[in-house]
Amino acid sequence: MQETRLDTDRIRAARRLIDPLFLDTPLYPVQGMEPGLGCAVSVKLETANPVRSFKARGTEVIAGRLVADAAREVVCASAGNLGQALAWSGRDRGLDVTVVASRFAPVAKLDRIRALGARLELVDGDFDLARDRAAAIARHEGIRLVEDSLDLETCEGAATIGLELVDAAPSFDAVLIALGGGAMATGVGQVLKTMAPGVEVICVQPLGAPAMTLSWRQRRVVTTDSTDTIADGVAGRRPIPAVLDDLLVLADDAVLVREESITAGMRMLLDHAGLVVEPSAALGVAAILEDRDRFAGRHVVTIVCGGNVDLARYHRWVGAGR
Amino acid sequence: MQETRLDTDRIRAARRLIDPLFLDTPLYPVQGMEPGLGCAVSVKLETANPVRSFKARGTEVIAGRLVADAAREVVCASAGNLGQALAWSGRDRGLDVTVVASRFAPVAKLDRIRALGARLELVDGDFDLARDRAAAIARHEGIRLVEDSLDLETCEGAATIGLELVDAAPSFDAVLIALGGGAMATGVGQVLKTMAPGVEVICVQPLGAPAMTLSWRQRRVVTTDSTDTIADGVAGRRPIPAVLDDLLVLADDAVLVREESITAGMRMLLDHAGLVVEPSAALGVAAILEDRDRFAGRHVVTIVCGGNVDLARYHRWVGAGR
Repeated sequence: MQETRLDTDRIRAARRLIDPLFLDTPLYPVQGMEPGLGCAVSVKLETANPVRSFKARGTEVIAGRLVADAAREVVCASAGNLGQALAWSGRDRGLDVTVVASRFAPVAKLDRIRALGARLELVDGDFDLARDRAAAIARHEGIRLVEDSLDLETCEGAATIGLELVDAAPSFDAVLIALGGGAMATGVGQVLKTMAPGVEVICVQPLGAPAMTLSWRQRRVVTTDSTDTIADGVAGRRPIPAVLDDLLVLADDAVLVREESITAGMRMLLDHAGLVVEPSAALGVAAILEDRDRFAGRHVVTIVCGGNVDLARYHRWVGAGR
Repeated sequence: MQETRLDTDRIRAARRLIDPLFLDTPLYPVQGMEPGLGCAVSVKLETANPVRSFKARGTEVIAGRLVADAAREVVCASAGNLGQALAWSGRDRGLDVTVVASRFAPVAKLDRIRALGARLELVDGDFDLARDRAAAIARHEGIRLVEDSLDLETCEGAATIGLELVDAAPSFDAVLIALGGGAMATGVGQVLKTMAPGVEVICVQPLGAPAMTLSWRQRRVVTTDSTDTIADGVAGRRPIPAVLDDLLVLADDAVLVREESITAGMRMLLDHAGLVVEPSAALGVAAILEDRDRFAGRHVVTIVCGGNVDLARYHRWVGAGR
């Protein structure tokens, strides 16, 4: 395999910096979904922790290293989950955390960032505008900027999900990974392609936020002017070149799914697993719904990556009882 | 401590018979509930597995031993979760499983029992009537009857939750356990009283199904003529004398909660943890809501024991979005 920025030894070292609260998450079959999906589906559940997303795997690594370097302050841009996780990881370590987010981010995410004691700055624009603002704060104040997917700790933290997957029995044929900035896709992809190369690594992005998928397909950075999706956690316009380079090595495929498939996936996870998930976490199920033939008879793992969602919106999207 | 029917070495042996799918479940703080409850609450999440309840810990032990003894058939009465778990544990081991349940049990539970290939017989009455019918089937057909809470495997399986709790850090002050037949309360209680005697063991039952709690308070079996609660998983009328004897040794307290506290607890677990749980799983939060002074400033663990619930009813109970 071609080299990437990632390395298995570094990923193992990262794992040792992560609070066990966020490790060894449940991986289990949801058999009630099999008739509807035509394949065996197991979920890797990243929502059963204090920040309800996988992002703390990365922020634990970042915060642990910052403290070891005697740093006191850190800033990040976030669609909501990274900020919440960084606030959590920073709080007990005495780090001052600033999070820049879109004022259109889910209230549930913004409320939790504040509740965890971080300074929250809202921009009147989308995630990519928040990235610019966070970078400006970091430059102006001379503090560490955390850049999701670009900073290796964010990829290495997410990659620890991959370590747990390759240790799992029984084995599986494919893993479906929500694709946003690419930290999870490259991190998990690195471990699987190194340690379980037979497993297909499939990234899934909404049709309404396709920048990284288009970039992967064209093998060059493609940006978009806007995004239009309920999957706020993966709605970026400007892929990072270094992350794309890694993704080109590590992903077997990148697919785009419709909004109605995402809500149908959320509904299936509620009906058959009792899981309230945010839209990004249903991208994998959506991909199966849109291409049942591809997965027929196979055993697929989908990473349920986040559960921070405004309930009123959630119920509008998925409905209430049957 | 006075002797009970339970033994730590046997509990450790039981653990080795349980599929790892059901072990080492998440234990994590739900900090969003702290302001509303006035204490630190961690959940021990027993719903993130293929049967969405803790009951498979016990049925794995039962099924494992039955197969070792070359048994082929087994019957149980169930409020829904035990039957689903026994069906799961029996299926891959080639056991013929018969489940007797009330026809008033949640459709979600009955559907999954059938989907897992068990023979389901419905009685026109409650759980205690199903117990009588299951016993009659066992006698007539000469097959093994599984009696929840009376059979030590069911207690030992549940007790493995206790092993995981005592291994957890940080430590906690009290554990809140849903009380039905008593398998979970006595199992977890045995481990805690043996290995972490400083932790308060508090059982929680609905006011509308108080038989075991009244029995514990009066130190003799008290039966009731009927039950009236949405917490179908713990709605029994006839406590088992041997289980009561153990509970008298192992429980520090047994409290009763109102229906509206149960639904408020379900709502809190949805709002702050994104968890869709069945009513029995919210008994612990309900107990805190009804006696905040008792728990003020303490660290409490509540076992989220099941998530099998009819969604239409769920939404009637807890409402939809805010």
